[in-house]
Amino acid sequence: MPTKKELLISPIQHIDIKQHNVVPLVDAMQSMAYSSRDLARAAAIYERMLRDQDCGVILCLAGSLISAGLKQIFVDLIRNNMVDAIVSTGANMVDQDFFEALGYRHWIADDLYRQGTEDATLRELMIDRIYDTLIDEEELRLCDDTCKVIADSLGPRPYSSREFIREMGAYLEKNGKTPAKGGVDSIILAAYEMDVPIFVPAFSDCSAGFGLVAHQHERGDKPKVSIDSVKDFYELTQLKIANPTTGLLMIGGGVPKNFAQDIVVSAEILGVDAPMHKYAIQITVADVRDGALSSSTLKEASSWGKVDTTFEQMVYSEATLALPLITGYAYHKKAHAQRKERHWARLLEPVTA
Amino acid sequence: MPTKKELLISPIQHIDIKQHNVVPLVDAMQSMAYSSRDLARAAAIYERMLRDQDCGVILCLAGSLISAGLKQIFVDLIRNNMVDAIVSTGANMVDQDFFEALGYRHWIADDLYRQGTEDATLRELMIDRIYDTLIDEEELRLCDDTCKVIADSLGPRPYSSREFIREMGAYLEKNGKTPAKGGVDSIILAAYEMDVPIFVPAFSDCSAGFGLVAHQHERGDKPKVSIDSVKDFYELTQLKIANPTTGLLMIGGGVPKNFAQDIVVSAEILGVDAPMHKYAIQITVADVRDGALSSSTLKEASSWGKVDTTFEQMVYSEATLALPLITGYAYHKKAHAQRKERHWARLLEPVTA
Amino acid sequence: MPTKKELLISPIQHIDIKQHNVVPLVDAMQSMAYSSRDLARAAAIYERMLRDQDCGVILCLAGSLISAGLKQIFVDLIRNNMVDAIVSTGANMVDQDFFEALGYRHWIADDLYRQGTEDATLRELMIDRIYDTLIDEEELRLCDDTCKVIADSLGPRPYSSREFIREMGAYLEKNGKTPAKGGVDSIILAAYEMDVPIFVPAFSDCSAGFGLVAHQHERGDKPKVSIDSVKDFYELTQLKIANPTTGLLMIGGGVPKNFAQDIVVSAEILGVDAPMHKYAIQITVADVRDGALSSSTLKEASSWGKVDTTFEQMVYSEATLALPLITGYAYHKKAHAQRKERHWARLLEPVTA
Amino acid sequence: MPTKKELLISPIQHIDIKQHNVVPLVDAMQSMAYSSRDLARAAAIYERMLRDQDCGVILCLAGSLISAGLKQIFVDLIRNNMVDAIVSTGANMVDQDFFEALGYRHWIADDLYRQGTEDATLRELMIDRIYDTLIDEEELRLCDDTCKVIADSLGPRPYSSREFIREMGAYLEKNGKTPAKGGVDSIILAAYEMDVPIFVPAFSDCSAGFGLVAHQHERGDKPKVSIDSVKDFYELTQLKIANPTTGLLMIGGGVPKNFAQDIVVSAEILGVDAPMHKYAIQITVADVRDGALSSSTLKEASSWGKVDTTFEQMVYSEATLALPLITGYAYHKKAHAQRKERHWARLLEPVTA
Repeated sequence: MPTKKELLISPIQHIDIKQHNVVPLVDAMQSMAYSSRDLARAAAIYERMLRDQDCGVILCLAGSLISAGLKQIFVDLIRNNMVDAIVSTGANMVDQDFFEALGYRHWIADDLYRQGTEDATLRELMIDRIYDTLIDEEELRLCDDTCKVIADSLGPRPYSSREFIREMGAYLEKNGKTPAKGGVDSIILAAYEMDVPIFVPAFSDCSAGFGLVAHQHERGDKPKVSIDSVKDFYELTQLKIANPTTGLLMIGGGVPKNFAQDIVVSAEILGVDAPMHKYAIQITVADVRDGALSSSTLKEASSWGKVDTTFEQMVYSEATLALPLITGYAYHKKAHAQRKERHWARLLEPVTA
Repeated sequence: MPTKKELLISPIQHIDIKQHNVVPLVDAMQSMAYSSRDLARAAAIYERMLRDQDCGVILCLAGSLISAGLKQIFVDLIRNNMVDAIVSTGANMVDQDFFEALGYRHWIADDLYRQGTEDATLRELMIDRIYDTLIDEEELRLCDDTCKVIADSLGPRPYSSREFIREMGAYLEKNGKTPAKGGVDSIILAAYEMDVPIFVPAFSDCSAGFGLVAHQHERGDKPKVSIDSVKDFYELTQLKIANPTTGLLMIGGGVPKNFAQDIVVSAEILGVDAPMHKYAIQITVADVRDGALSSSTLKEASSWGKVDTTFEQMVYSEATLALPLITGYAYHKKAHAQRKERHWARLLEPVTA
Repeated sequence: MPTKKELLISPIQHIDIKQHNVVPLVDAMQSMAYSSRDLARAAAIYERMLRDQDCGVILCLAGSLISAGLKQIFVDLIRNNMVDAIVSTGANMVDQDFFEALGYRHWIADDLYRQGTEDATLRELMIDRIYDTLIDEEELRLCDDTCKVIADSLGPRPYSSREFIREMGAYLEKNGKTPAKGGVDSIILAAYEMDVPIFVPAFSDCSAGFGLVAHQHERGDKPKVSIDSVKDFYELTQLKIANPTTGLLMIGGGVPKNFAQDIVVSAEILGVDAPMHKYAIQITVADVRDGALSSSTLKEASSWGKVDTTFEQMVYSEATLALPLITGYAYHKKAHAQRKERHWARLLEPVTA
Repeated sequence: MPTKKELLISPIQHIDIKQHNVVPLVDAMQSMAYSSRDLARAAAIYERMLRDQDCGVILCLAGSLISAGLKQIFVDLIRNNMVDAIVSTGANMVDQDFFEALGYRHWIADDLYRQGTEDATLRELMIDRIYDTLIDEEELRLCDDTCKVIADSLGPRPYSSREFIREMGAYLEKNGKTPAKGGVDSIILAAYEMDVPIFVPAFSDCSAGFGLVAHQHERGDKPKVSIDSVKDFYELTQLKIANPTTGLLMIGGGVPKNFAQDIVVSAEILGVDAPMHKYAIQITVADVRDGALSSSTLKEASSWGKVDTTFEQMVYSEATLALPLITGYAYHKKAHAQRKERHWARLLEPVTA
């Protein structure tokens, strides 16, 4: 049996779209067929939504994207003012981004390990596997613990996930987990600094959940921190109301997709006639034929009054291939150059304070 | 343009596994290949977990399953003591099951409509589409409103989704939405009556979310109902601690799969060395190669210490084909005949009261 | 390392649709959603094409279906006059059906082996793997050899694959490989006896190819047997011309699907205005988004003038689940009861003699 | 209803990998996860097989690739000595490459058309559709006719598809369909000029089949051209025997994949102990779980003794995204710079003359 050290030697490295001018390549894909043409159209729509001065951009993340080497893209989108709010699964934000911000890494799994025949060995070594990537489970436990530390430090009341994640950003800054102090950059830190709110509608379903369960268990009957997912929904709806023109850049489906699409209806329920999302892109490999939300087309979302169909594009591709091309295209076209900063997180403080 | 009435004429009808003895058919599949053999093995594992007197069965639901005609299966599993807890997406429980419990229906969409070219028409008619199924959006709004009515009636404090859904069951009973009074049976009602707890970890991400947002909006700064997803996680973990031997029957992936798998780790964090889920079945069409949780194998989950691999089976099939065969097999083998009722909801009342 | 004998112990067993009356089950699927409703509609279309006295039924087979336990279904379709011609990949007809007719079997592979990590062991043991199924490679070589024996016995000229496969049927009969003499039934034998022509348009791409290459090699410059795929196309077109109303029952895509669809155009090229295929069903898991023929919709085929769209249905399912239900439905509805035998092979003898 | 002219306005344009140095981008993918890492490894394997002076490279093509804008890649691979033989479906070579060589084009279909709801209109306009691409059916008939003209000009005997396709190359040259004379470059022409043999094992299953059927029909009982697929198999096996070290670059699966893999076994049957394919790459979106050959892993092929597993890589991606990156990587790394030309077609002339 190998040792843990022997298995965790090649770290996942995050792609840097700033280094790769993919504009000519993506332009060439415009006149091809299938996924390449769809991808080129999606890139053009993302460019268009960034150039639309009225449009707020909401990024939706599902699937294990950070562990896959896509973290730097999201950091760059935030720091270059190419995204105004994020809706994500917990794993991406906490188990993966916050985890790396604490100084830990993801590791490349050798081809043998992805077949699943060695998982008993991994179990014994306390190594967790995400398809072809490995994680040191002991480090992940430290990530859980840090979430508990943060929860313990807060006043007892219901928080939106956004509020809690903002505290995680503050924690990183306070504890020197910043590039300026030799740390690595992270989505949570960049969003904290740029006032980009991050929502995780199923927040207990991740490493933070473990920390929060431990917090609540310890508090027993005493007042404690709770996570109110309704508040998340309310806050994101407020953003839609304050900034009616919106575009969605979605990787994967799941709760983030549904949640972000739903705010159009939610605004209506609060008595505000908000327009459908004007732009929408989804990168996915899910198949429409099982009827699940993750794979449902953006056309279908238009029947629900959630997404306009003039500028919508599904891209059928695994995200590590498509996302660097789509975001790199918009970045190198400088679509964000004239874009005003929105600081949406500041809009929400009066709501929550 | 057709009228709404012309489009909503053929209702979805729920399959009744009690009427179809599929045992010989599934037995024949045991010695075939591919999905049929996997399905037969999954059916045998479900039978085995029901015959294991120590085993608590957790049902996980993702994807639009109720609207697809699978509701009666879940009702039958509850009423026949074949499931002890449910973890679900909100859409299945609220937008679809509770919606039908209120007296509304889902409708078959003609082949033309699933192509997405008629969604503008549907939008105008206030008809929502789920692939090949249609919903009257005005009825869905009434479902949202009912959730608000329930929220308004509750004392202001953080609730687990389980607690709130239990109140929905009480509402159905109180308002005569029961078979005894001419209503239709429902998952929420059956679970209420049989003390089967239902967890929806991303509870605001559905019709209930709309009702709750309206509730919180109306309350403004006054005390209000909130939904604490940490509490859900804590409660489900308590069930695992109280009943260490567990089996998972999962349809689709997403949050419900992750959430239910995670309770093994959560128990450990609370200081209890709970065993991995002893049995696990997942029906899915998701492809493992994109690395997402929904498609991750149960072997992979074993590297995380969540699922034992002796009795695990992935079934690669769209659920409307596989689920009637798997559950029908266990039902007609009378695997549940000697099974003791668990009434897990009662276990949780001291926790939450 | 295990021995070959230890690995080849559990044979694949073919499902017998005659034993399972699935009519009520499939009828219940009519009012559900997704694949179940599609499947029910496909079953109804197959029933309809069998009741249409004018309609000739062409069965198209791609994917490893016989090794998967579906052989008896095809034998039953032939012997019950539910199919009039077959277009197949070579593997299904030669490596698998003829192979079993010679007395060999396919074997269930233990779960470990489908992961691919043990293939070096299998290689050493001369065991071939098809996903979760195993084959004794030494037996397969004997199947190759038998094809050579048949080729050696024939007069040297170009043959259609249909002619050659007919000789394979004759070989089975002559050598006592029939149920009457203690052998197992087979598609090739049943088709031989029932005058159902079988076409394999890429005939050298299978075990027969190995036998034929050896035959041609041995003959050197002397006259030899060759396989003329144009002749296949010509013959199948003749059948379309002689029997203009046709229906397709397709499992998988590939060459068989394309070949059978093309005969409409081919007839036109021979100056006969043949109608499009009136009925068409395809069972597949292939995804339409890669633009390949295997996954192209039957609607797309209608743009080519090949398939009418009134009675067409794609069923998105792995075949071992869907095919027993679709064919079992038609069988138990006795859709074939009044159907006249066509003996299409007889039609072709004047063409080829 | 639009006119044909209105629908056929934006031509598919072929991507030119020579213009896009993707080396840094692909190198960055090496340390990511999922498809990007697989793709980077595949690119490195392709580079390695080109640098291996002993290795002959066989390119396998399935799916509608030429119509999708990938033609120039294959032309460049041939003209830059990066491929030594091609095994393809007929559609790619005849309906698409030869078709374009004759001066016709493929056209971009508007988003509306890919949904399948407008296929009746396309049918009426004599426009054929491949997912999101359109073809003028009248032009395609002229392509069929040209194949007949070529067949009519040949001496009556069995031909391998390779021989026939070589005649198609000669036809293009003779009729001035060359870049030098203002024509467009094509795979068939480049292969003709560079002595790269092209095999289409199911040759009648394409536009050439229509021409050949018309040819045979016209000839009636007189001597005629036939297409002997056994001869194809024999010839490709001879190449393997003459050049034992081989690598496969496969796009899609189907007959080309199976056929090329099988020559290892075929050599053995001719008494030559040829090594397995030393290198193998397959780009596909097919899912392994249906057991079909197209999706079977290269590990599985190793159980059959066909593919070595040291340098094999499956890339799960739609080809228009992955292929430009993989081939562009090898091209810009100048992996072919020192490579000797093989002119395999010359090796076969003594065999066939």
